[in-house]
Amino acid sequence: MENFFYVQPVPVDFGVGKLNTLPDILKDSNLKNGILISAPSMIRNGIAQKIIDQSEGRITTLFSDIQPNPTIHNTDACADMIRKYQCEFAIALGGGSIIDCAKVACFVAKTPYPTADFFSRKRPVNKPGIPLIAIPTTSGTASEITTVSVLTDTENDIKAPIGSDYFYPTYALVDPELTVTCPPSVTAISGIDVLAHALEAYYGKKHQPLTDLAAERAASLVFEYLLTAYHEPDNLEARAKMSEASVTAGMAFNLTQTAAAHACSYPLTQDFDIPHGEACAFTLPSFWKLNSQSEPETERLHAFSQRLGFKDAEELADRIDEMKKEMGLRTTLEEIGVKTEADLDQLVANSFAPNMANNPVTVTKESLKALYSELK
Amino acid sequence: MENFFYVQPVPVDFGVGKLNTLPDILKDSNLKNGILISAPSMIRNGIAQKIIDQSEGRITTLFSDIQPNPTIHNTDACADMIRKYQCEFAIALGGGSIIDCAKVACFVAKTPYPTADFFSRKRPVNKPGIPLIAIPTTSGTASEITTVSVLTDTENDIKAPIGSDYFYPTYALVDPELTVTCPPSVTAISGIDVLAHALEAYYGKKHQPLTDLAAERAASLVFEYLLTAYHEPDNLEARAKMSEASVTAGMAFNLTQTAAAHACSYPLTQDFDIPHGEACAFTLPSFWKLNSQSEPETERLHAFSQRLGFKDAEELADRIDEMKKEMGLRTTLEEIGVKTEADLDQLVANSFAPNMANNPVTVTKESLKALYSELK
Ligand SMILES: NC(=O)c1ccc[n+]([C@@H]2O[C@H](COP(=O)([O-])OP(=O)(O)OC[C@H]3O[C@@H](n4cnc5c(N)ncnc54)[C@H](O)[C@@H]3O)[C@@H](O)[C@H]2O)c1
Ligand SMILES: NC(=O)c1ccc[n+]([C@@H]2O[C@H](COP(=O)([O-])OP(=O)(O)OC[C@H]3O[C@@H](n4cnc5c(N)ncnc54)[C@H](O)[C@@H]3O)[C@@H](O)[C@H]2O)c1
Ligand SMILES: [Zn+2]
Ligand SMILES: [Zn+2]
Repeated sequence: MENFFYVQPVPVDFGVGKLNTLPDILKDSNLKNGILISAPSMIRNGIAQKIIDQSEGRITTLFSDIQPNPTIHNTDACADMIRKYQCEFAIALGGGSIIDCAKVACFVAKTPYPTADFFSRKRPVNKPGIPLIAIPTTSGTASEITTVSVLTDTENDIKAPIGSDYFYPTYALVDPELTVTCPPSVTAISGIDVLAHALEAYYGKKHQPLTDLAAERAASLVFEYLLTAYHEPDNLEARAKMSEASVTAGMAFNLTQTAAAHACSYPLTQDFDIPHGEACAFTLPSFWKLNSQSEPETERLHAFSQRLGFKDAEELADRIDEMKKEMGLRTTLEEIGVKTEADLDQLVANSFAPNMANNPVTVTKESLKALYSELK
Repeated sequence: MENFFYVQPVPVDFGVGKLNTLPDILKDSNLKNGILISAPSMIRNGIAQKIIDQSEGRITTLFSDIQPNPTIHNTDACADMIRKYQCEFAIALGGGSIIDCAKVACFVAKTPYPTADFFSRKRPVNKPGIPLIAIPTTSGTASEITTVSVLTDTENDIKAPIGSDYFYPTYALVDPELTVTCPPSVTAISGIDVLAHALEAYYGKKHQPLTDLAAERAASLVFEYLLTAYHEPDNLEARAKMSEASVTAGMAFNLTQTAAAHACSYPLTQDFDIPHGEACAFTLPSFWKLNSQSEPETERLHAFSQRLGFKDAEELADRIDEMKKEMGLRTTLEEIGVKTEADLDQLVANSFAPNMANNPVTVTKESLKALYSELK
């Protein structure tokens, strides 16, 4: 009989057109002197300005100097802005990069320290930051409801997650309409990340009854709707289902953490410049197969695959590969620039982040090298 | 495309033997000068004293003067105790009656007013009470994770729910081992309440994707394990599954609210003295059939029934009746004391609490009387 610990403290306010309720949310919570943290693309398309205009003066500051895969310089600059204008709350409008930056900046701003002190674990994250309303514009990371922020320390060349219960946003406003402007490549990369979250939550050692339900639901939505969202960017039903898949997978992996495919993604992003979702998906079919071929999860993964309409776990894995190919995501070592034995050894050596230990089948350097060697 | 609002702010710390972690939880949160709110039965069996002893002086006060279906006198007396000893936190150890009383008392104690002021809606519930750790000893109400408390105002002869986000306990410690001492009748009554929560959450108008998942899981656990828990009180696996079913159903109905079967339960309890779970279950099979026979939910309810292993919705409803009979729960009007036409009319007239409007098929006095008339 298993123990579990379940919580979902961030309210998820989900629906097409929900962005229009933001002014009321701000009014009802009597929030004032806020900062909008967003991306240049949201400023260009006018949505940022619309939010500011409709806030009736409640948003006073704008910060958008954030790069994809945000750095600890980005969070420091954002925190400085919050300190300087004494902002009392924040709104993050963007993909995982924007929300990850905002989560940490909201906290760092309430301290006199730089992000590096927390990123390096020199100091603990031990108190709440300013309230944060997170509004995702991709269907991918679910950063709007998780404890985690993935940051890059460019000086020390480290991309790593930092997590704390104090990083939970205060509120997640999920409006699928915001994702219709995602170009197909972003839809593909962030969408396949959702599948990685769902499958890794399902097979990860820390899975539990409620996260299993969420993971299965999220995975089935991705298989049903991702290609449609990719091919028909304006298809609002597909967008809504992918947004639902993203938050639902988030509710699972926020508690279970991720496993081998995510552990492998870090050096793929860092050293080979593969975007996060594509990097996770690179080994995802292989790990799904590996985990379904060995105890303890063989039966569970086969049954899961069958409930999703596949003959067996193998067929599910093959389907991921087909989807990747159809969306132009890379599937071979050569395509991602791992060309020499030395490249491969480096990749393998750097793949053992802590979440690797959450994989149900123990992964060794040898077994990982063998797994990668199949991806010719 | 549907909107939804999902949240589960109460952390659920679940596992056999988890009660032993309570001292650490108190220590880690540095809680002091607490009150234990419990039932006489938990004092007699020594568990209350064990908790006090292990708290290393953190629990200083004990309150146990609470009757099943707690009254606003119970909550007032409990609140007075909290005020008098300036308790800084509370632990509720008991069934739904104890936890419901504690939820309201923790809040009332922080005001100078009596419960009646809030129960009558004269004053709003608008601030947090003292922190509350809820430890259920039945598998039934899921009060440990919901916003609701069901109280009785004996002067005005009203039993009604009162709800607020400020009634969420701070923490739910769910140890299935605590339920093994439940006599079969309590197991039956509280266990069938879980099924009512699950099915009503599923067909209720406010159902949403994530509550659907939780409701289905909870219902399938009840069908699989309730009779075992009833016949074999010491069967810890069955107890654990029923505890899991209870919190899982709670996650659903906390957001969807309940519907027709619960609306009908209030006069059954109030005027005919039927315990809560038995009262809900009295009309549950009838409403499951009614809702599955008419749009909009026909297809969903049939598919749900089939996924749970039944031929159709009708067979699921019949199974509830079989289980009720096997556990000695009443299934006819005569058995519950509704003997005359006048009794029936009174029952029907008092059945239209607000949650009746949450039923997918509109219920009228006429249709309800017809439905009851079948229960001969
Ligand atoms: N916090 C977590 O739990 C978590 C989980 C997984 C990944 N991550 C991190 O999140 C980041 C990836 O986030 P992401 O996948 O959301 O991508 P992203 O935020 O990096 O955005 C990718 C690109 O898409 C653009 N974009 C975003 N929304 C758009 C829209 N609606 N219309 C047009 N363009 C849009 C962005 O401007 C950017 O150029 C990575 O740094 C990854 O490591 C975090
Ligand atoms: N808050 C909510 O969301 C919610 C939902 C449904 C019902 N309720 C309310 O909760 C109450 C019913 O709660 P309940 O079904 O848990 O029953 P209960 O708390 O009234 O307890 C029923 C009986 O069982 C005994 N008991 C409880 N645990 C025991 C154990 N482990 N060993 C031996 N005896 C034990 C109690 O002492 C009592 O005599 C009703 O007032 C009902 O209206 C509340
Ligand atoms: Zn990811
Ligand atoms: Zn109930």
